[in-house]
Amino acid sequence: MGGVQSFRELCDRPKNTNVRLSLPAVCFVWQIAMIILFGIFIRYDEESDAHWIEHRKHKNISSDIENDFYFRYPSFQDVHVMIFVGFGFLMTFLKRYSFGGVGFNFLIAAFGLQWALLMQGWFHSLDYTDGKIKIGIENLINADFCVAGCLIAYGAILGKVSPVQLMVLTLFGITLFAVEEFIILNLIHARDAGGSMVIHTFGAYYGLSISAMLYRPNLDQSSALHGSVYHSDVFAMIGTLYLWMFWPSFNSAITDHGDAQHRAAINTYLALAATVLTTMAISSLFQKHGKLDMVHIQNSTLAGGVAVGTAAEFMLMPYGSLIVGFCCGIISTLGYIYLTPFMEKYLKIQDTCGIHNLHGMPGVIGGIVGAITAAAASEAVYGQEGLINTFDFVGDFKDMVPSKQGGHQAAGICVAVCFGIGGGVIVGGILRLPIWGDPADDSCFDDEPYWELPEDEESIPPIVQYNNHMRNKDLKE
Amino acid sequence: MGGVQSFRELCDRPKNTNVRLSLPAVCFVWQIAMIILFGIFIRYDEESDAHWIEHRKHKNISSDIENDFYFRYPSFQDVHVMIFVGFGFLMTFLKRYSFGGVGFNFLIAAFGLQWALLMQGWFHSLDYTDGKIKIGIENLINADFCVAGCLIAYGAILGKVSPVQLMVLTLFGITLFAVEEFIILNLIHARDAGGSMVIHTFGAYYGLSISAMLYRPNLDQSSALHGSVYHSDVFAMIGTLYLWMFWPSFNSAITDHGDAQHRAAINTYLALAATVLTTMAISSLFQKHGKLDMVHIQNSTLAGGVAVGTAAEFMLMPYGSLIVGFCCGIISTLGYIYLTPFMEKYLKIQDTCGIHNLHGMPGVIGGIVGAITAAAASEAVYGQEGLINTFDFVGDFKDMVPSKQGGHQAAGICVAVCFGIGGGVIVGGILRLPIWGDPADDSCFDDEPYWELPEDEESIPPIVQYNNHMRNKDLKE
Amino acid sequence: MGGVQSFRELCDRPKNTNVRLSLPAVCFVWQIAMIILFGIFIRYDEESDAHWIEHRKHKNISSDIENDFYFRYPSFQDVHVMIFVGFGFLMTFLKRYSFGGVGFNFLIAAFGLQWALLMQGWFHSLDYTDGKIKIGIENLINADFCVAGCLIAYGAILGKVSPVQLMVLTLFGITLFAVEEFIILNLIHARDAGGSMVIHTFGAYYGLSISAMLYRPNLDQSSALHGSVYHSDVFAMIGTLYLWMFWPSFNSAITDHGDAQHRAAINTYLALAATVLTTMAISSLFQKHGKLDMVHIQNSTLAGGVAVGTAAEFMLMPYGSLIVGFCCGIISTLGYIYLTPFMEKYLKIQDTCGIHNLHGMPGVIGGIVGAITAAAASEAVYGQEGLINTFDFVGDFKDMVPSKQGGHQAAGICVAVCFGIGGGVIVGGILRLPIWGDPADDSCFDDEPYWELPEDEESIPPIVQYNNHMRNKDLKE
Repeated sequence: MGGVQSFRELCDRPKNTNVRLSLPAVCFVWQIAMIILFGIFIRYDEESDAHWIEHRKHKNISSDIENDFYFRYPSFQDVHVMIFVGFGFLMTFLKRYSFGGVGFNFLIAAFGLQWALLMQGWFHSLDYTDGKIKIGIENLINADFCVAGCLIAYGAILGKVSPVQLMVLTLFGITLFAVEEFIILNLIHARDAGGSMVIHTFGAYYGLSISAMLYRPNLDQSSALHGSVYHSDVFAMIGTLYLWMFWPSFNSAITDHGDAQHRAAINTYLALAATVLTTMAISSLFQKHGKLDMVHIQNSTLAGGVAVGTAAEFMLMPYGSLIVGFCCGIISTLGYIYLTPFMEKYLKIQDTCGIHNLHGMPGVIGGIVGAITAAAASEAVYGQEGLINTFDFVGDFKDMVPSKQGGHQAAGICVAVCFGIGGGVIVGGILRLPIWGDPADDSCFDDEPYWELPEDEESIPPIVQYNNHMRNKDLKE
Repeated sequence: MGGVQSFRELCDRPKNTNVRLSLPAVCFVWQIAMIILFGIFIRYDEESDAHWIEHRKHKNISSDIENDFYFRYPSFQDVHVMIFVGFGFLMTFLKRYSFGGVGFNFLIAAFGLQWALLMQGWFHSLDYTDGKIKIGIENLINADFCVAGCLIAYGAILGKVSPVQLMVLTLFGITLFAVEEFIILNLIHARDAGGSMVIHTFGAYYGLSISAMLYRPNLDQSSALHGSVYHSDVFAMIGTLYLWMFWPSFNSAITDHGDAQHRAAINTYLALAATVLTTMAISSLFQKHGKLDMVHIQNSTLAGGVAVGTAAEFMLMPYGSLIVGFCCGIISTLGYIYLTPFMEKYLKIQDTCGIHNLHGMPGVIGGIVGAITAAAASEAVYGQEGLINTFDFVGDFKDMVPSKQGGHQAAGICVAVCFGIGGGVIVGGILRLPIWGDPADDSCFDDEPYWELPEDEESIPPIVQYNNHMRNKDLKE
Repeated sequence: MGGVQSFRELCDRPKNTNVRLSLPAVCFVWQIAMIILFGIFIRYDEESDAHWIEHRKHKNISSDIENDFYFRYPSFQDVHVMIFVGFGFLMTFLKRYSFGGVGFNFLIAAFGLQWALLMQGWFHSLDYTDGKIKIGIENLINADFCVAGCLIAYGAILGKVSPVQLMVLTLFGITLFAVEEFIILNLIHARDAGGSMVIHTFGAYYGLSISAMLYRPNLDQSSALHGSVYHSDVFAMIGTLYLWMFWPSFNSAITDHGDAQHRAAINTYLALAATVLTTMAISSLFQKHGKLDMVHIQNSTLAGGVAVGTAAEFMLMPYGSLIVGFCCGIISTLGYIYLTPFMEKYLKIQDTCGIHNLHGMPGVIGGIVGAITAAAASEAVYGQEGLINTFDFVGDFKDMVPSKQGGHQAAGICVAVCFGIGGGVIVGGILRLPIWGDPADDSCFDDEPYWELPEDEESIPPIVQYNNHMRNKDLKE
């Protein structure tokens, strides 16, 4: 008991946000570790190695266009934009935390993708002949995906943590992600192309658990900064729109070549369109005078993309996608109106960006939709070869049937939630240590502790003066 | 006469901008209708269906890369960005209507693309064997194109209508578009890959007619809001640049595979480059002290892309593209300087974004350029097969000759203008009904009636104070 | 001596920023010249000409997907975004020069790409059978690359020159670029896919020399404008992130089909990730309280992409890319902290955007890394065919060996630096002539001389008033 007591005291010391030693130390040491590990483990795969020209002839591949690069590079670039501009600008909505939103997002994504290449590589791309991880374009996409899980978690604690804490969150988050992904995709053999379970469910519950562990009971002290201004809301719309527009690329980026990529893009496109309408409807219906709330438009319009992630590559059917989007727009917006205040008040979980409404619930729904769609699959709809091809019923799983696949999908959801909550509690505990330079309550949602800020906008010489100045000059001439 | 009188009175009642019932009702009912219609009519086409793997073998298609997805998906994503970020941010230029500009653009595009998939599907993609519309990536692009027509129309009435009115405008706009497009492309057999006629001419005159019907004689009451501020002009440049950069994708997105897509991209790239120079020249030449006007830079620089839309896939020649761009930069900028004020004063047409200068005139010019280029086509320039291939002289039109094709192109312009004006007058009449929640004159160009606005920027605690605060803290430590 | 004296006096006359005649004249005359030269010289190449369908059959090309358009168009669009949004928004960081940053960038890029198509065409794409330049998608990418050199140079003199001066800078810059590029790539046979030498080194030293020639000793008069405000820094992050995200496309856009494009993208992706971490580390380490400086984040995070430009297509290895990125983040950030003030104080070179830290030093490092990597190439690593393929050891250079190639690479760096400095001194001298309408010292970094500015933000009616207004209205109803 005394130990807990003194730990508590330790955690509640006055805050020191000076990260002048810890941040550079973490960045340097971890980056050097990456270089060493990459030197030991990572090599080009056969499609990005200079031997490709020989390999191509050997395998009778008729054209360079068959290189996986051309199948996936456009989608990769879209996903890359989602990670850095999408997530980054979505988090600029706070009036005085835009630097931290977009800047720390940049930092942890840049670190996370390197660590993800290693972690996922060990599980999925290890060449047992030489013990090296062989990477190509698909690994880069998966690394970006892996990072997305941590950026989602960042959304819950936006404005309340130091960059060093975020680096720690990312290190553990990527590690947990890779293990969880291996269990869900390889051991359980669930399909999850768009990552409803693997990315969104895991990321959301990981972030929420961390936020619960870092609960700040007196946070409303800085409530003046816990809101947006007109222009910061417009900046956030850049993030929203890039996430919205490129989500079809996200959900189709690593599906099978051909019809699966094609179908995943169509399903996602439709689900997202439906979500916009129901989000606007609920937002208007629950406000005085029917006014729309930017928080809903910025976030809930994306819920359909999350919820269609698992099933996007299946024969969900266009109307099925619309139904998923329809429901998620409603649920997500109602979540912002009722659930987020409830969670803060009664569950002591502060969720700055409302990730539970945007990633948590829609992610779980996405897992369920995936399970149902998989269980309902039939040769009549998919064709004999199509069914095998879509669900990858080959090798160890060649005797699998759709109904059983549905059960495996459902198991995947549970694994994702458990890893998210379990990992978040542990990592949250680590982040409570008073060594990470996190801000005091009255410096939350403020760029001031971690950024050199420019002088205030007020100090711009008013334009009128300049006009006079010019006019005088003109008169003289 | 009495009927007209009382209709007028009805229309001139005090305004009530509360859309708390009407907006959710429209969104819900129409979205549910979409789900039902999609359930009845819309299925995957053979390239996005799980049967593709069997279909591929059956047709001896050697590789998945032959799936239309890989020919068109990069262009689709660029078009998608133009619709949501391009049009959306171009409309954020007003100082207090950025939420409405980007937000309502988002709403009506998300609804419009669903309705467009149905309307265009019935005309172009109906499979008569089973009565279903089969959709693939090309349908998604066409749906985005169809939406563009309505977003152009929105530009004329930006800031003066309610979201419910915009939904009505979109419902009818998409319907009219699909019919007009069927007449121009299929019945008249005009070619219009980039939509100079089908999209831009139609959209502009549709919007202008609606604006004329909704004329507000006392609008200058809210003139304080009818302008930009420094940062809103920078936001609008995001829209401008994305439209400008991705216009080559717009004009090449649905042209034939191979040389046609390649050529359309080159022609558009060149036309747009020339437009920038002449826009800057005219803007500077007609202002005091030669200063540039952001309104021109934001809009007229795009006119070349509109005007090269029809002819982009033809052998317009690189210098031909430059000439088209050169002329349109001049005409469009002069339009902003002389024609827009003239139209407002004498024709009673208020055109918020100046769509007549950006889409109307350049669209008609584009149609004319297309007609001339088509009429001048020869086997010497195109090659025998190339001529047939480019103008699709097959089936019912296998005896067509270029000179006759030129006439058909010209007929297409007339159809587009007629549908635009005719449709706009009717829809404008409907939108005058006093049931749609449109704003009073002194609430125009203001987000306040339809959006929950954040508190004012003034309320941010000044940074200096924080610095002191930190300094004190440092002293204590 | 008297001549120099009177030239000095001429140059030091009071400034007149009225460009009402000169800017339109330059735009019109040069654009007309472009049209004439395009008419004489530029035609479609065989992949964008309507004869492609015949050409395809003739050459037994099995599918339209083999058209170079499909190999390069996605990369082209990314490069296009970097040129217009990337460079454009990166230069919006000044509090009152955002219009000039993004607007003049737009103008000179639009002119430059036309002139680049001609200049590069004469050197690289001239068809000697008919004396025409044949253009396709690769030419468009190269034209964008060529423009990048001039935009880099613009960074050094941002806010201190008139648009007419920028047009002159671009005309000469493109011309010099094309000659320098021909010498480096064709005569010396150095490889430089991402342009570390050809684009970045040349562009940086060209701009710095011009800035030295245009040195303004009393510039701190306008120091109030020589900084950012909160929102302008967020705008600049749009530019930073698009450059950062799409740099893999930049470095892979014109490499060989297949493994070279694939590998260049991977190497660039990794180098940039490492740069972010070391930039953040150094930025934090050298500031009071460890706060991050936006100037570093906006610029130095990109240095890795520059430095990996030459070697990206080689077998640099993933860890090699990380090492390059690691070092450049440190060097570039230290450059901002120590070298830029030093250069301004002692070398009389004012470098507004710090292009020496972002493009100059990393470009030279990139050339050196390329030389070392080339010299160290071996058949063991590349394979016999891979080595020939990667370094293009064919034709006149079929007896070339890697060690000699390394020497040629090093020679390329020298040519780039010499052309940059030499060209910059000459062009800088021309730009000192007092006929170009450049701003006085106290109008530097200000949009006022060249742009119609909107009224001040202060003049927006406060929102509160509107709320009251609405409330009154509600009461009445």
